[in-house]
Amino acid sequence: MTDQSQPSTTRRGFLKAGLATGGAIAAGGAAQAAQEPDPLITEIQPWAQGLGDGVDATPYGLPIEYESDVIRRNVEWLTADTISSINFTPIHALDGTITPQGCAFERHHSGAIELRKEDYRLMINGLVDRPLIFTYADLERFPRENRVYFCECAANSGMEWAGAQLNGAQFTHGMIHNMEYSGVPLRTLLEEAGVKPEGKWVYVEGADASSNGRSIPLEKAMDDVLVAFKANGEALRKEHGYPVRLVVPGWEGNMWVKWLRRVEVTTQAIESREETSKYTDTLADGTSRKWTWVMDAKSVITSPSPQSPVTHGPGPLVITGLAWSGRGAITRVDVSIDGGKTWQIARLAQEGQDKALSRFYLDINWDGSEMFLQSRAIDSTGYVQPTKTQLREVRGLNSIYHNNGIQTWWVNANGEAENVEIS
Amino acid sequence: MTDQSQPSTTRRGFLKAGLATGGAIAAGGAAQAAQEPDPLITEIQPWAQGLGDGVDATPYGLPIEYESDVIRRNVEWLTADTISSINFTPIHALDGTITPQGCAFERHHSGAIELRKEDYRLMINGLVDRPLIFTYADLERFPRENRVYFCECAANSGMEWAGAQLNGAQFTHGMIHNMEYSGVPLRTLLEEAGVKPEGKWVYVEGADASSNGRSIPLEKAMDDVLVAFKANGEALRKEHGYPVRLVVPGWEGNMWVKWLRRVEVTTQAIESREETSKYTDTLADGTSRKWTWVMDAKSVITSPSPQSPVTHGPGPLVITGLAWSGRGAITRVDVSIDGGKTWQIARLAQEGQDKALSRFYLDINWDGSEMFLQSRAIDSTGYVQPTKTQLREVRGLNSIYHNNGIQTWWVNANGEAENVEIS
Repeated sequence: MTDQSQPSTTRRGFLKAGLATGGAIAAGGAAQAAQEPDPLITEIQPWAQGLGDGVDATPYGLPIEYESDVIRRNVEWLTADTISSINFTPIHALDGTITPQGCAFERHHSGAIELRKEDYRLMINGLVDRPLIFTYADLERFPRENRVYFCECAANSGMEWAGAQLNGAQFTHGMIHNMEYSGVPLRTLLEEAGVKPEGKWVYVEGADASSNGRSIPLEKAMDDVLVAFKANGEALRKEHGYPVRLVVPGWEGNMWVKWLRRVEVTTQAIESREETSKYTDTLADGTSRKWTWVMDAKSVITSPSPQSPVTHGPGPLVITGLAWSGRGAITRVDVSIDGGKTWQIARLAQEGQDKALSRFYLDINWDGSEMFLQSRAIDSTGYVQPTKTQLREVRGLNSIYHNNGIQTWWVNANGEAENVEIS
Repeated sequence: MTDQSQPSTTRRGFLKAGLATGGAIAAGGAAQAAQEPDPLITEIQPWAQGLGDGVDATPYGLPIEYESDVIRRNVEWLTADTISSINFTPIHALDGTITPQGCAFERHHSGAIELRKEDYRLMINGLVDRPLIFTYADLERFPRENRVYFCECAANSGMEWAGAQLNGAQFTHGMIHNMEYSGVPLRTLLEEAGVKPEGKWVYVEGADASSNGRSIPLEKAMDDVLVAFKANGEALRKEHGYPVRLVVPGWEGNMWVKWLRRVEVTTQAIESREETSKYTDTLADGTSRKWTWVMDAKSVITSPSPQSPVTHGPGPLVITGLAWSGRGAITRVDVSIDGGKTWQIARLAQEGQDKALSRFYLDINWDGSEMFLQSRAIDSTGYVQPTKTQLREVRGLNSIYHNNGIQTWWVNANGEAENVEIS
């Protein structure tokens, strides 16, 4: 009854190869049991001798204490104050594609506020037939959509423009999360208000002190933008804009306005602080690019990585990471273990989804020598993730935002990993 | 630039109809702003006057205090002790399809134990060429898969066999959750051990005191069963089997052994307590069905429902719920507002996924009169969810498990909902 299908046969061959050269995996455990009894197997395990927690112990549960290092972390020197700052998703310790809200990165411009549903109002004004004010209860009466999207801060990997700096995928690439959102299409609310023919943009702002106002072309606002109130099934967390945030699929996270308060239909962009002095890209000649909304295709190996070293010797090793594109779905990810000299096509855990994270794996038989690990994402438009050298040729070294260059982790023979650049 | 596509036009018409008859939605707010100034709009909102929490406030976040009622709940009279008991997912308050681990139901037979990764061992023995013992670190070296699956307790809706009893979707249908799992196919580990030709079943058991042993046909074990260590991206929670549980897609939750300790390959089923005196179905004539592993197609309206009443008058109303099938994907959900006399095809938020929850919506213009809400799931095999009457004709009234009959909520003119049965 053994499964003789092609994938399994291949996989079995791979593992046998690993055992033959490595000898550490599984067979090691069996040999141990045969030769010197493992006290964890031969004696009664303490956790099997008594009773555990009842079902009334944790009405809302948290991770087990042993996972207390899998948390958001901020970098103290990065900003003057934690109120206008960022923390990072522990992507080095996660698998799959969904990001739990509890450890999904935060970016605030004036801190995370507390706003009750009862106090919530959303105004649509400007170039509309009927200015409208919605309560939270009003929003719940409109037809809803559900969709998984990634949210990436435009500044993700922004400290790496001048060279490898931060030692960990959490810090170099952790300004990203991926959740299933439930909400009302912004299009539905705009149609309810009636957009006048001269309306070509919307200006969206939040209820926090920063207001974080951004301009969005009407075409995008009428396309896939959601006025979202749930993420991964439950209410948005306070730090992600409870009770209502904007979801702007594929576009930079700064536009995903939290605690959404107002949508004004305008003829032109407002050219606010957040889209002029910030969230524009200074080029080599000192001029700036603006309206760089889309997050281009990007990927990163999450393990092995500096915070997730290889803890075993040669033999079977799982290389895994994340890939995404603001222009569509990921269609392919290539992985190199020799710094880009040769590439292998990684296995996508699922078919790529539009503007959502993809998980990739490359299962190798590690020979124990040093590796220069890289990944390269390709999306449904045919766009190929560039090298950092290619990016710098076009953009110079003065940018902060939109660094989607290929990341390199150097893994030494001890399995330790380090953020490096190779020319 | 207004979107003139067919779906939007339809939606707009729907909302206009709602405004015309109901007058409450959105226009109510606008009228209020025009006639008597809303202090929340015209005065400076307190949350916009100061600063919120910094990014170091919650390294691992919890829901905001205002959502403190969205929690797992148990029913005290249901079991003698909370150690061997169940709690229920608050499905009435969730949207989308992903269940956050923090509020995903638990079922324990001897409580939730604490087992460190370092202490974890998985033995594969019995009819294999090489008995093996895996550490947690060993498991991490095998090729992984990621997949979203629902897990439903066989006893979900089990208290309803004799008639409507529990007043809330959380209690009648909340022994279910839906997560994205990352793990190693059990097939891979069995192939590593080498299943002997006479091996036809596996017996799986957990490391807790109950051990909760179950027999699984080898064909299923070699198909889609996962040895999982992550759910929704992060480590399993203690209450869901940290660090390793079995995922048996589409089959009853009792087989999804937590704290997985041992897989024994056997010639026959073990006929353990959990598959003889429990988890079999007593029929009308006193005999019992066994090996009823698959969870048949089922659905429930989560809102409106007793814990999620309609809080507004006539006009636009979102009816939403969940549907699933252990035999494949959901292809259609029908909704009735008149107790099954007439049916409308609900909108699926996404194309149905194999053995995973589907979210459905029906957007109606409520006339304010009482409704008898029902939903009926149809899966990719063509199976149609039966009525409770149809189920009882075949099964009698003595069962506990596998009640997938159509649920009815009576919604009165005040919007309050109640669990009822209609003949």
